[in-house]
Amino acid sequence: MDIASIIGLFGCFFIIIFGIVTGNLGFAALPNFWDLPSIIITIGGTFVCVMASVSMKDFIAGLSSIRLVFKSPTGDEAGTIRTIIDLSNVARKEGLLSLEEAANNLEDEFLKKGILLIVDGTDPELVRAILETELSCIEARHKKTISFWETVGAMGPAWGMIGTLIGLINMLKVLADSASIGPNMATALVTTFYGSVLANWISAPVASKLKVNNSIEIMLKEVIIEGLLSIQAGENPRVIEEKLKSFLSPKQRIEFSAASGEETLATSGGGEN
Amino acid sequence: MDIASIIGLFGCFFIIIFGIVTGNLGFAALPNFWDLPSIIITIGGTFVCVMASVSMKDFIAGLSSIRLVFKSPTGDEAGTIRTIIDLSNVARKEGLLSLEEAANNLEDEFLKKGILLIVDGTDPELVRAILETELSCIEARHKKTISFWETVGAMGPAWGMIGTLIGLINMLKVLADSASIGPNMATALVTTFYGSVLANWISAPVASKLKVNNSIEIMLKEVIIEGLLSIQAGENPRVIEEKLKSFLSPKQRIEFSAASGEETLATSGGGEN
Amino acid sequence: MDIASIIGLFGCFFIIIFGIVTGNLGFAALPNFWDLPSIIITIGGTFVCVMASVSMKDFIAGLSSIRLVFKSPTGDEAGTIRTIIDLSNVARKEGLLSLEEAANNLEDEFLKKGILLIVDGTDPELVRAILETELSCIEARHKKTISFWETVGAMGPAWGMIGTLIGLINMLKVLADSASIGPNMATALVTTFYGSVLANWISAPVASKLKVNNSIEIMLKEVIIEGLLSIQAGENPRVIEEKLKSFLSPKQRIEFSAASGEETLATSGGGEN
Amino acid sequence: MDIASIIGLFGCFFIIIFGIVTGNLGFAALPNFWDLPSIIITIGGTFVCVMASVSMKDFIAGLSSIRLVFKSPTGDEAGTIRTIIDLSNVARKEGLLSLEEAANNLEDEFLKKGILLIVDGTDPELVRAILETELSCIEARHKKTISFWETVGAMGPAWGMIGTLIGLINMLKVLADSASIGPNMATALVTTFYGSVLANWISAPVASKLKVNNSIEIMLKEVIIEGLLSIQAGENPRVIEEKLKSFLSPKQRIEFSAASGEETLATSGGGEN
Amino acid sequence: MDIASIIGLFGCFFIIIFGIVTGNLGFAALPNFWDLPSIIITIGGTFVCVMASVSMKDFIAGLSSIRLVFKSPTGDEAGTIRTIIDLSNVARKEGLLSLEEAANNLEDEFLKKGILLIVDGTDPELVRAILETELSCIEARHKKTISFWETVGAMGPAWGMIGTLIGLINMLKVLADSASIGPNMATALVTTFYGSVLANWISAPVASKLKVNNSIEIMLKEVIIEGLLSIQAGENPRVIEEKLKSFLSPKQRIEFSAASGEETLATSGGGEN
Repeated sequence: MDIASIIGLFGCFFIIIFGIVTGNLGFAALPNFWDLPSIIITIGGTFVCVMASVSMKDFIAGLSSIRLVFKSPTGDEAGTIRTIIDLSNVARKEGLLSLEEAANNLEDEFLKKGILLIVDGTDPELVRAILETELSCIEARHKKTISFWETVGAMGPAWGMIGTLIGLINMLKVLADSASIGPNMATALVTTFYGSVLANWISAPVASKLKVNNSIEIMLKEVIIEGLLSIQAGENPRVIEEKLKSFLSPKQRIEFSAASGEETLATSGGGEN
Repeated sequence: MDIASIIGLFGCFFIIIFGIVTGNLGFAALPNFWDLPSIIITIGGTFVCVMASVSMKDFIAGLSSIRLVFKSPTGDEAGTIRTIIDLSNVARKEGLLSLEEAANNLEDEFLKKGILLIVDGTDPELVRAILETELSCIEARHKKTISFWETVGAMGPAWGMIGTLIGLINMLKVLADSASIGPNMATALVTTFYGSVLANWISAPVASKLKVNNSIEIMLKEVIIEGLLSIQAGENPRVIEEKLKSFLSPKQRIEFSAASGEETLATSGGGEN
Repeated sequence: MDIASIIGLFGCFFIIIFGIVTGNLGFAALPNFWDLPSIIITIGGTFVCVMASVSMKDFIAGLSSIRLVFKSPTGDEAGTIRTIIDLSNVARKEGLLSLEEAANNLEDEFLKKGILLIVDGTDPELVRAILETELSCIEARHKKTISFWETVGAMGPAWGMIGTLIGLINMLKVLADSASIGPNMATALVTTFYGSVLANWISAPVASKLKVNNSIEIMLKEVIIEGLLSIQAGENPRVIEEKLKSFLSPKQRIEFSAASGEETLATSGGGEN
Repeated sequence: MDIASIIGLFGCFFIIIFGIVTGNLGFAALPNFWDLPSIIITIGGTFVCVMASVSMKDFIAGLSSIRLVFKSPTGDEAGTIRTIIDLSNVARKEGLLSLEEAANNLEDEFLKKGILLIVDGTDPELVRAILETELSCIEARHKKTISFWETVGAMGPAWGMIGTLIGLINMLKVLADSASIGPNMATALVTTFYGSVLANWISAPVASKLKVNNSIEIMLKEVIIEGLLSIQAGENPRVIEEKLKSFLSPKQRIEFSAASGEETLATSGGGEN
Repeated sequence: MDIASIIGLFGCFFIIIFGIVTGNLGFAALPNFWDLPSIIITIGGTFVCVMASVSMKDFIAGLSSIRLVFKSPTGDEAGTIRTIIDLSNVARKEGLLSLEEAANNLEDEFLKKGILLIVDGTDPELVRAILETELSCIEARHKKTISFWETVGAMGPAWGMIGTLIGLINMLKVLADSASIGPNMATALVTTFYGSVLANWISAPVASKLKVNNSIEIMLKEVIIEGLLSIQAGENPRVIEEKLKSFLSPKQRIEFSAASGEETLATSGGGEN
């Protein structure tokens, strides 16, 4: 569970409620902000319009991607680098073929696939081509989901404004009773309010979070590709470590060195590392 | 027929009608939203202005592209990959020349053209150059149509605002009778309403859907180019399969493996595959 | 003459007039939309400000580029491809030097220059470098003109708003007579109206049309560069035809095949082609 | 002196004054548009905020760059090309070392530096690397100045709006005397007016003009780099001329040919050229 | 301490206060601009929403990056170039291995790491790959922080508008007492005011300043990479100096020559330099 997303999404909800009830009307104001037809125009219009913008399959995938926001990204760069260094030690000592066994214990499907390609003796150029094509297809799928939420964020205020225009035109046509102007205009503005809230409470954070998660995953996979090609080229594990550590921030690098100092002593005898 | 587009485009229409009739006036409000001069200013102004922005040929092509929105994209990646693997098996067993006969049964013109280039013994570099030029010209033609609808989406609200400014200036010049302000302002706002609806109900979904369809088609053609060059290079069908499967999502890949497992047994004897 | 531009630019004018006279005031409303000081502020401010943004030479070139909008682009891709294939047949049969004579009959200066470079025995790399530099300089000059009209389109509404702010401040300072508010506000809004019309009736279509014409010309010149280098490399006319046909749309390709079928029979004996 | 910038910047000033005095109040309206606190909020807020956005050194450089707008760009492409061709003739006849003397008479520091690198016998790859690094650093410095004015253009309207919000909130809090609403709102709008004028009268043209001057200078330096490398490679002066003429527009090319026809006769004997 | 940031951020604060107190109400107006619920809606909503957009770790890193704005960037290009030239002299005279000792005295971690890679005899291609990966990861981390403040700048006005919409809807629903309209609308506008101030006083300058600092650091590191690779390739210190001086502005170059003239005399004997 990603605590920032949970605090963020629920916090915004309470801040909106707080904003409503601290006005002159107090809690009595809450019903003014609940109007079913306005919800249908704004939220309904937005999602039906997004449905027309993508295929049905992508629409369902886009909607269901909201749960990814609450999952912490599993990108453990330091762990991945350590795994690759261990694999390079195995490959150096026992040959590339011995990696097949090691690959069976790996959880990361992408890394596993790469190892199996190497074990099969695939040409390095082809290994890179296959893994990079896969990487760019993964990114293309992620971008589709991100763009779903960006479309929601653009459509929300637009349909909020359409709702407000409908309300205003209805109100202005019968401007007989000046006492009804205020409440009618309030109702007209409710769709604009819904549109803003949909765009800024839901779409913007979801799209932004999915982008962050995407960039973490892509970077991790780039680390894996670099590492796999180094293993295949038979590079020295220490050089591979140096190479992959460039992907870490200074802080991660210190943690990495501290952790791997002990571990590598245990797993590879240490002297060579 | 693409069900999402149909639900989307008709759904938005009903949501707009629903928004209008759930106001205080009920169904009596509908005529307020129908004003022929306003339609001519907004919709007419938009399309006449778009006509000035492109050539007549592109204008007609742009308008008629709206029907593409209702056609499901025919991009069957798994099927295409299977076809290419079958072709590579044929080429391996019976030589590149035997592909000519196989090409006659293909429906995809792009794939067919590529096969014929290979059969003609065209230089691989040239095959790639020809197919990639064709690909980028296809994309350029698609982008022209997408940009047509984006221009409509930008022009709609602009002409809606021009209409509203005309209405406001007319109204403000003779501000004698304060009772007429409301209805006149309502009429002035109708063009803004039309502009918003044109942009968000029609242009945005159409442009977005055409972009989605374009990216599916382009990706499929990239799969074909990669596959054709691999066939020409005489690569192993299994390697080709591995390479092309990188274009599939994990879900598609499982479906593909399930389906091709049986099929390849039937078509190529299986052992080699 | 480009019929779409003519219909578009004049059509928009009539739609604006139609929008004005279908209001309550009828044709009596027209004078409300003519205000010389407002024209000076909006149109004058826009163009004087654009003048400060570019050099005097580019300002005059930008202004005079409006006539290009009414000229149909002369990009005849099929004809150019046919010319190049004819030239390649000449070069094959009679040698590269014989192209000099053929070049004298060509109207396209760019193609002519390329032929002369080839006849001079210029190194292929240098031919490509010279032609591509020329291409990118042509595009840079076109982009300057396009950007002129985009600046006009951005400045128009800005100066319209400055005019409206001036009008509003003047009006609000002496809010004595409430009867004069309406007409004064109408006058203030006229500059906003002029700015919108300038941006959406003139600038946007002109900039867009110049972009379309630019991309047609650039693509044609790319066809020429590819073709010339193929001729210089002594490639087979049939291969050149195949290569250049990739630039055509399916429809153009059918027309091209139909037309060139007959023509090539006549010009080159046909058998070889 | 660049006449377009002078006409543009002063012309806009007079158009704004004209817009103010052609209102109902005539010249009596001018004091309404002068409000020192509003100037401090808008102009002061903008520039202090820009100061926080850059370093003090860049702030001063940005401010002082406004004088560059009035200087005509010194990019004389034809002259530069002629100089390079003369240098290539010298190099051909008297050897690369003889260029040292010629370099002393050159005004352009960039060209001079390049010549000295060549005379020193620097490796061509290194000459290109050094000159291109310098070119991209020059462009980076220009972009910093351009971005200074773009920031001013974005901050101006923002601080104008902050000033207007302050004025509106102050006014609305004591809505006792309805007669004071108008003048107070006028004062509130004055900051919006200042912000718009700052953005559209000053920032936009200055940023745009600096961009134009930058692109002229960069293009000239690209011509020099191409020319220097050709001289170093010992290419034929005629080929160099052909190469560099691709950077010229058709009109410049005709002028160039006319001028250099005579000149080259005088300087290099003509036969060879 | 960066004086421009301090003047800028505090200056803007005083300008806002000045704008408030120069209105009709004088210092009595200040309390009108302090409204705790509005602060919670705008500032709270913004930051809670940004928290939902990034991970908790990046949120804390983003917030704490504000202190970097007050630190002058430590990018001393001339000093770095001098250090590299000194190192190249050491390497030339005493061999690459002697650099290890020199590296211990260096403060710049990036330069130190590069030197150690060279001393280890790492392949030049690998040195470049490692340092460039590190550079792009540093830039990616900087961009994350910059994007944090850009998100704050986008969210501020959005939540200000949500607050204003809440206030307006609350106010319009009970439009009984027309005397309360003004003060209520003033309160509603206060959140818009907060949003604008947050975006333009804080976010925009902070994001912009971080961008400036990032580009200085990146450029410095590019100088280091170029210099290290030249040292490894055993290039002449004078050539290295020429190469690296291309990164300097004309002004920096004069200062550099003046300073290094004396210094190099002292450190390297001068003759060779």
